[in-house]
Amino acid sequence: MPEHPACTKTPNPLDEFGVISRFFTDRSFYPSAWPSQGAGDDCAFLDVGPMRLAVTADMMALGSHFLENASPYTVGRKALAVNLSDLAAAGSEPKAFFLSISLPRIDENWLEGFSRGLLEEARRFNCPLRGGDTVKSFAKPGQSPYTAISITAMGELPAGKGLTRAGARVGEDIWVSGTPGDAFAALGQIFGYWTFAEPLLGYFRSRMDLPEPRVALGRGLLNTATACCDISDGLIGDLKHILERSGVSARLFWPAFPESDAMKQLPEAVQQRCVLSGGDDYELLFTAPADRRDEILRIAERADTRVSRIGEVLSAGEPLQVIDEKGSDVNCAASFNHFGEVGS
Amino acid sequence: MPEHPACTKTPNPLDEFGVISRFFTDRSFYPSAWPSQGAGDDCAFLDVGPMRLAVTADMMALGSHFLENASPYTVGRKALAVNLSDLAAAGSEPKAFFLSISLPRIDENWLEGFSRGLLEEARRFNCPLRGGDTVKSFAKPGQSPYTAISITAMGELPAGKGLTRAGARVGEDIWVSGTPGDAFAALGQIFGYWTFAEPLLGYFRSRMDLPEPRVALGRGLLNTATACCDISDGLIGDLKHILERSGVSARLFWPAFPESDAMKQLPEAVQQRCVLSGGDDYELLFTAPADRRDEILRIAERADTRVSRIGEVLSAGEPLQVIDEKGSDVNCAASFNHFGEVGS
Repeated sequence: MPEHPACTKTPNPLDEFGVISRFFTDRSFYPSAWPSQGAGDDCAFLDVGPMRLAVTADMMALGSHFLENASPYTVGRKALAVNLSDLAAAGSEPKAFFLSISLPRIDENWLEGFSRGLLEEARRFNCPLRGGDTVKSFAKPGQSPYTAISITAMGELPAGKGLTRAGARVGEDIWVSGTPGDAFAALGQIFGYWTFAEPLLGYFRSRMDLPEPRVALGRGLLNTATACCDISDGLIGDLKHILERSGVSARLFWPAFPESDAMKQLPEAVQQRCVLSGGDDYELLFTAPADRRDEILRIAERADTRVSRIGEVLSAGEPLQVIDEKGSDVNCAASFNHFGEVGS
Repeated sequence: MPEHPACTKTPNPLDEFGVISRFFTDRSFYPSAWPSQGAGDDCAFLDVGPMRLAVTADMMALGSHFLENASPYTVGRKALAVNLSDLAAAGSEPKAFFLSISLPRIDENWLEGFSRGLLEEARRFNCPLRGGDTVKSFAKPGQSPYTAISITAMGELPAGKGLTRAGARVGEDIWVSGTPGDAFAALGQIFGYWTFAEPLLGYFRSRMDLPEPRVALGRGLLNTATACCDISDGLIGDLKHILERSGVSARLFWPAFPESDAMKQLPEAVQQRCVLSGGDDYELLFTAPADRRDEILRIAERADTRVSRIGEVLSAGEPLQVIDEKGSDVNCAASFNHFGEVGS
């Protein structure tokens, strides 16, 4: 989930992925551990006896991932939704989650709303809360304490199966679900990048506050897609991870991008900023062979989820391009990165 | 892990367990979810196909669970150790963990020490880091950002097996590993409750900073102990959880309590405060039938871990007692509770 840009003013050569690769990548041999595919995907796969688990973990803070005045119900629902989106990107079936929460105080109203949103989302996706930790936040005198929420969610996969960011092959189609960019349109208004009035604002805010994890779509794509991720860090940014992990490049066709009616009312430069590099969307981006197009449309229909074919996979030597109807380059703003700068 | 008392000045009728029971207990039916035993133990058990997993989650913050100037190596080692201790209390074999961390900035020295401690502990217990999340902490202007660490650790159990806090029966023995109280002796000096000089301080600090998760002992006890937990919240406090969950009471014999040579040098009132209700110890407290005493001593010897028989399980109608050699009551200070008051 992208953070408020106030948190990211200082560019640093070590971004989130740099930190993971430099400090948290352990190439030791663990003799009896459950086998896993290694870092770089929305979920880790764990081969547990004859079963495969998909596991994802997210840390979120009020004031950073959530506005400080966000409704606690929204915070609860979205905190779980973003983890379910990672399970969806792996093609797995959500099965259980764990919640660790650090609170400044016992605010019963806040806890009532938060737990209601969280447990509603849990029931919607049949993914029960199975444990966790509740602690009190620390603050020095004169400082305000924080609320931090950490969720680890677990899903099930058939043995040996699971969608990752590796697997895209030259010539395949690139697809995206839903209408990306809507959440960032709301975020951009909050950040002061642009303004718009109701009813646009209400629509964009609801898309930012209540993302729909694409669980049914992800599970449907398990035997069809060759690579998959969600686009929580922005469509281009997350596409780049697929391309790197798969050793390929891509060309996207801007006119083929799906847009909400609300998005179509914004200036085209804002549309491109939101859709291509916005972030905070929990849509699935995936690749598949061209001969699976009809099958994908059937899977999407069964999942009641719109999908759009937006580009093609090229060989690694080609530049990553987004082109318009005339074949000219569309400028891609840098995608969001937790420890980098927010493009604008 | 207990927190600095500065965090817990305001007593609140809703403590950590109250919050869990009131807000985070969902009695809905989840048709396809993995079966689990419900809340109240160090780990949740998940029956995943023919396998059983034990899962635990802990949230920790610098300045609260760790001193702000704690060595990053120590923070890394202990952050994982306290989770491994929960897996040990379930009798499970550690298999994988997930780390979510919220950092104020990329401090390479801190990250180097933290990740070294963390991954050393991972290797010691053959429990690899399999994924997680790295985010930047939010702070308002003029406020200092925080470091919060959330770990979810997973272990394996034989199908249908696993130690919980339920299962203690009247007439059984009560045992504890190691020499409880040492960690709290150090914490009490930091809190200003008492003072002592080297070499005591160094010994107590090392016991606080580098707890030894009793993984081999817990696994050895899987088919022998009837109830088990770690005593991270204090021996009496955690014993009470066993008693409540098992529907029994207990009598403890103060002269039978194991104590380190360092602990024996403190005034007896301080010893009782540290040993009985201190917290931040990662020893196992467990119950077992009296006819398993020899077996338990053999298991402990194989695990290279001292165990001591400190009491007996009584029927629920009896009061919980700690008695001295004359049969008189030893005063038990209230055990630590995250949202309650620290006893003193």
